[in-house]
Amino acid sequence: MTLTEGLREVLDGPFGALRQRFRAELPAELFAPLPPDATIEEHRAETWRRLEILASTGMQVLPGVEPVAAFELLGHANLSLFVKVGVQFGLFAGVVKNLGTQRHHDDVLPHALDLTLPGCFAMTETGHGSDVQGLLTTATYEADTDELVINSPVPAARKEYIGNAARDARVAATFAQLIVDGINHGVHCILVPIRDEHGAALPGVTITDCGEKLGLLGVDNGRLMFDQVRVPRTNLLNQYGNIVPSKGDDPLEPPIRADNYRSGAYVSPIESRNRRFFTMLGTLVRGRVTVGGAGAAAARSALTLAVGYGLRRRQFPNPLAEDGDMLLLDYQAHQLKLLPLVARSYVLQSAQHDLVAALERVESGDFGGDEDHARRELEARAAGLKAVQTRHATDTIQTCREACGGAGYMAVNQFANLKADTDVFTTFEGDNTVLLQLLGKSLLTQYARDVAELDPVGIARFVARQVTGTVVEHVGGGVVQRLLAGAPANADKALVDRGGQLAILTDREQHLLDGLAQRLRAAPKGDPVASARLYNESQDHLLAAAEAHVERISLEAYLEATADENATDPEVRQILDLVADLYVHDVVFQHRAWFLEHGRLTPNQSKEVVRRRSALCAELRPHATALVDAFAIPPAWLPNELLDA
Amino acid sequence: MTLTEGLREVLDGPFGALRQRFRAELPAELFAPLPPDATIEEHRAETWRRLEILASTGMQVLPGVEPVAAFELLGHANLSLFVKVGVQFGLFAGVVKNLGTQRHHDDVLPHALDLTLPGCFAMTETGHGSDVQGLLTTATYEADTDELVINSPVPAARKEYIGNAARDARVAATFAQLIVDGINHGVHCILVPIRDEHGAALPGVTITDCGEKLGLLGVDNGRLMFDQVRVPRTNLLNQYGNIVPSKGDDPLEPPIRADNYRSGAYVSPIESRNRRFFTMLGTLVRGRVTVGGAGAAAARSALTLAVGYGLRRRQFPNPLAEDGDMLLLDYQAHQLKLLPLVARSYVLQSAQHDLVAALERVESGDFGGDEDHARRELEARAAGLKAVQTRHATDTIQTCREACGGAGYMAVNQFANLKADTDVFTTFEGDNTVLLQLLGKSLLTQYARDVAELDPVGIARFVARQVTGTVVEHVGGGVVQRLLAGAPANADKALVDRGGQLAILTDREQHLLDGLAQRLRAAPKGDPVASARLYNESQDHLLAAAEAHVERISLEAYLEATADENATDPEVRQILDLVADLYVHDVVFQHRAWFLEHGRLTPNQSKEVVRRRSALCAELRPHATALVDAFAIPPAWLPNELLDA
Repeated sequence: MTLTEGLREVLDGPFGALRQRFRAELPAELFAPLPPDATIEEHRAETWRRLEILASTGMQVLPGVEPVAAFELLGHANLSLFVKVGVQFGLFAGVVKNLGTQRHHDDVLPHALDLTLPGCFAMTETGHGSDVQGLLTTATYEADTDELVINSPVPAARKEYIGNAARDARVAATFAQLIVDGINHGVHCILVPIRDEHGAALPGVTITDCGEKLGLLGVDNGRLMFDQVRVPRTNLLNQYGNIVPSKGDDPLEPPIRADNYRSGAYVSPIESRNRRFFTMLGTLVRGRVTVGGAGAAAARSALTLAVGYGLRRRQFPNPLAEDGDMLLLDYQAHQLKLLPLVARSYVLQSAQHDLVAALERVESGDFGGDEDHARRELEARAAGLKAVQTRHATDTIQTCREACGGAGYMAVNQFANLKADTDVFTTFEGDNTVLLQLLGKSLLTQYARDVAELDPVGIARFVARQVTGTVVEHVGGGVVQRLLAGAPANADKALVDRGGQLAILTDREQHLLDGLAQRLRAAPKGDPVASARLYNESQDHLLAAAEAHVERISLEAYLEATADENATDPEVRQILDLVADLYVHDVVFQHRAWFLEHGRLTPNQSKEVVRRRSALCAELRPHATALVDAFAIPPAWLPNELLDA
Repeated sequence: MTLTEGLREVLDGPFGALRQRFRAELPAELFAPLPPDATIEEHRAETWRRLEILASTGMQVLPGVEPVAAFELLGHANLSLFVKVGVQFGLFAGVVKNLGTQRHHDDVLPHALDLTLPGCFAMTETGHGSDVQGLLTTATYEADTDELVINSPVPAARKEYIGNAARDARVAATFAQLIVDGINHGVHCILVPIRDEHGAALPGVTITDCGEKLGLLGVDNGRLMFDQVRVPRTNLLNQYGNIVPSKGDDPLEPPIRADNYRSGAYVSPIESRNRRFFTMLGTLVRGRVTVGGAGAAAARSALTLAVGYGLRRRQFPNPLAEDGDMLLLDYQAHQLKLLPLVARSYVLQSAQHDLVAALERVESGDFGGDEDHARRELEARAAGLKAVQTRHATDTIQTCREACGGAGYMAVNQFANLKADTDVFTTFEGDNTVLLQLLGKSLLTQYARDVAELDPVGIARFVARQVTGTVVEHVGGGVVQRLLAGAPANADKALVDRGGQLAILTDREQHLLDGLAQRLRAAPKGDPVASARLYNESQDHLLAAAEAHVERISLEAYLEATADENATDPEVRQILDLVADLYVHDVVFQHRAWFLEHGRLTPNQSKEVVRRRSALCAELRPHATALVDAFAIPPAWLPNELLDA
């Protein structure tokens, strides 16, 4: 086994065989860039054609989470196709599967999966993007006709940026406030036909095209307005909220308690409206998991191109270069630009696999303990990793574009597409700032539970930790080990010890949460305005805690994936260790002001982090080719101009 | 005078009347976005048409530096036009003016300025981008015919990314190694006709199109290869390097000493080949000054759009919002994204005016003392400000795009164009990393001179400063005032005192240079490889010093521009002061790890910087509209969808 192959196996983790099959079987034509003068309609038509080719491989009906682990690789080279896959199979077919019942699984799902029924996922509205609970579209049950009436009462209720809506979709899985008997039961999803078989909008449905976007030209985003559109009651995806039929003997699915069984009544297996809402929103989790993975895949493409260029392009004569001009990647500044991002890509790939495994456990019911808890934890983790990975993608692709100079600006070298197509990832499928807050709030909730569950000794220890933290901060010196059990005796040693590294990131997360909880505890009871102000003023603290959590769990995932038993080859082992070291030093480098402010590092230790991070880049430099080759992106998927000498 | 007008006057600085005229007189059609399906040829043709409209205003022949101060405003809304202006009037006409002599000024310049002679500036080569001294194109003088033979001896000598070359230019100002009598006299510039009047390539000239780019679709970048192309000797732009005519009685310009006057000889008023090279490269300075300014102008457009959207778009119910959903800009996280960038835009605008004023002094010969020194300082400052302003542009436009969510991704809202068109600014007209190194080296040179010029007392003081610095770092506590004369007695007070703020940034720059000089002094004499390694390992240090310099001079420029006598209105005064405070706190915030590592801030002081930066954003929030309105971007230049309620 070659070094590259050894690294690739670690990177592919539990999905190696699947991903190798995906790389081998997907025809290269799916990834060929369109000619520069292609019209938007040509982009859309070609993307649909490629979606059909992809569907013919049957990979969209792979079992369990396999499609998630495979389709993120589309992010390497065709983001429009990735998004179309996500909209049709992930969101549309997914919501039918997750929120629908047997009849929908029988009548709708097969057509969604074989593309005979193109659909869209109509959640976002012009007036409400991130705030789904505030959606304005209504679905009013009319007992007389046993129908639901879908309506957009105001312009702000217009469905906005809906993928597949402008051209292809014939049905919209429409999120609306469900009103039964004059009572609003909150957001539900209803299948609403929007186009006839010839592609014309159906009566009462107004479809407009969002027009040209910054990128993703192959995705037909559109807007939908509904003017009292009638659909049968059975179009309600009724897994978690149902209406007892007003006529006929349609069996009610899922079965509910007989005493609620009143004709025309709203019934739900979930009593709490809030909990019902979040259960339905759980359908978004697959999308977020996959978007984060695809963003990271795009970043790996950019790094493959930029590292390759840095190993080919020479600039300025230098005594360090034997034959005159020096390779770009031999300059320290160039190494510092690219190699920490390579290390981060490795670590995030492991975190992504871990997330997919968590998704699999939840979807298959294989969680120890409380289902709600497992779901909430999955959603929080998916939100956080989506935010961190898409941020990583945007930053990395930009850095790589610049690292290739003028060549990076030429459309043929594909940075233009990678940049433009992934750009929206930071704000769609949940805005990153909103998602990190979601994670942060979830961590706080868990934190409150942890404290609540402590026995008196635990509480005493908890308080002691607060005090220690405070004291250490005030004396301004201190080292990491004082705060951590099991870590080496000082920060210098902790930084080169796996347990110590983990302890450093764990301590940061924990201390941020401690501080946040203390800060928010000061909120005056019964004064919502003052509490809201305090909360608003702590947003930066909340976001930092969420980010620290993702950094810690990512390192954990990487250290598990690269444990000795998974990487026995000494050369592979050495490189994986350097990657872990560089990741940790880069994270500490980025946050070293915090470590200094909180007495976790002395000034000299912090300077050593700066020095060591540079040194680690130099140590990884000889392995640069192997590091990016292990990303295993099929050469036919990438442009070759930058890489060929 | 309104508040907005008061702020605008400060922002426009010495060029208020000129810029107001530019805003009023330039027809809005110059800024209308092209339809999304426009072809590249349509973009190019329309951009040329707009260039003609612009030329008809006569602004390209404004006196002195006025075109520089005015044309940066094109960066608000039409970057392709900006670049075409820069190539035709700045680079092409500029090099004719600066490197040419009377005959070129008479015969060529008027046609360059009235667009009857479209030209290009052919410097960059496929094999050499940043390393101009290493260019491979040759211009060999043939005494028999009194001609220069222009040749591209190898594929790497191909001229690359040349603006105007693919479609419009008829002449290329070509940089080539000038060979006379078999001796290479270094890089010179020669006017080489490349197209006939019908647009066909001339014999021996191969022109290819660089094709589609990430942005700047209106700019026709091309490649040029020369196969033994002959031009008259008089096509050499011969201000700083000349050839004595081998025949005829063509008067030699500029006049040179008679004893060098040998037929067919190379002669130059500048003996040092290196100095001659840098004198010729001085022609690049105007381009760099203008590109930095245009990048900053594009950032101001993005901020105008994003701040406007943040003051219109509501998301999530919140007790802090009286009428339900909260405005985006009332969230702390949103303020922290946008308002420090607004403050930075204010400060950089002043720095840009200062730079243009320095350009004016050098161009008009109004420098105290040594011309070489004044030019080098100008070039270093222009390089640094170009790098910092274009980095600011890329980061700001990205942040603003994201702050507008899905709306930011729609092409109609223009972030797509702003992003794509300015993206190349970080790497063209000098790669930012290379430019910051150029500045850093210049600061080091100046530093060495300062030390060399010290008398014994000065040297003693200098050494004392080193020691103090070291001691303070080692005890790990310390406050800024110990290191600085004239600043308040502690860092807390220095941070809220103008002199203290300046002292803080000055101290950082100085200490970075001190440390760098000490570090490089360890280079072993006579061991070029070891020295080169040491230098390479100090690249991050050098880049940090250069950035610190730009931050310091930018604050100086802003404080001068906003001195009491320039802003007497109390409300204007208050806002300008808040902007200064936010800028300083943001700079210290970004670098607070360094301040902690070097004993300039205690941990508690550093935490206070974090807190105060947030508080300053909240204090500036009520003035957000005035702050961006004062950018005075004509509404017709910007899209209106995000700003209209």
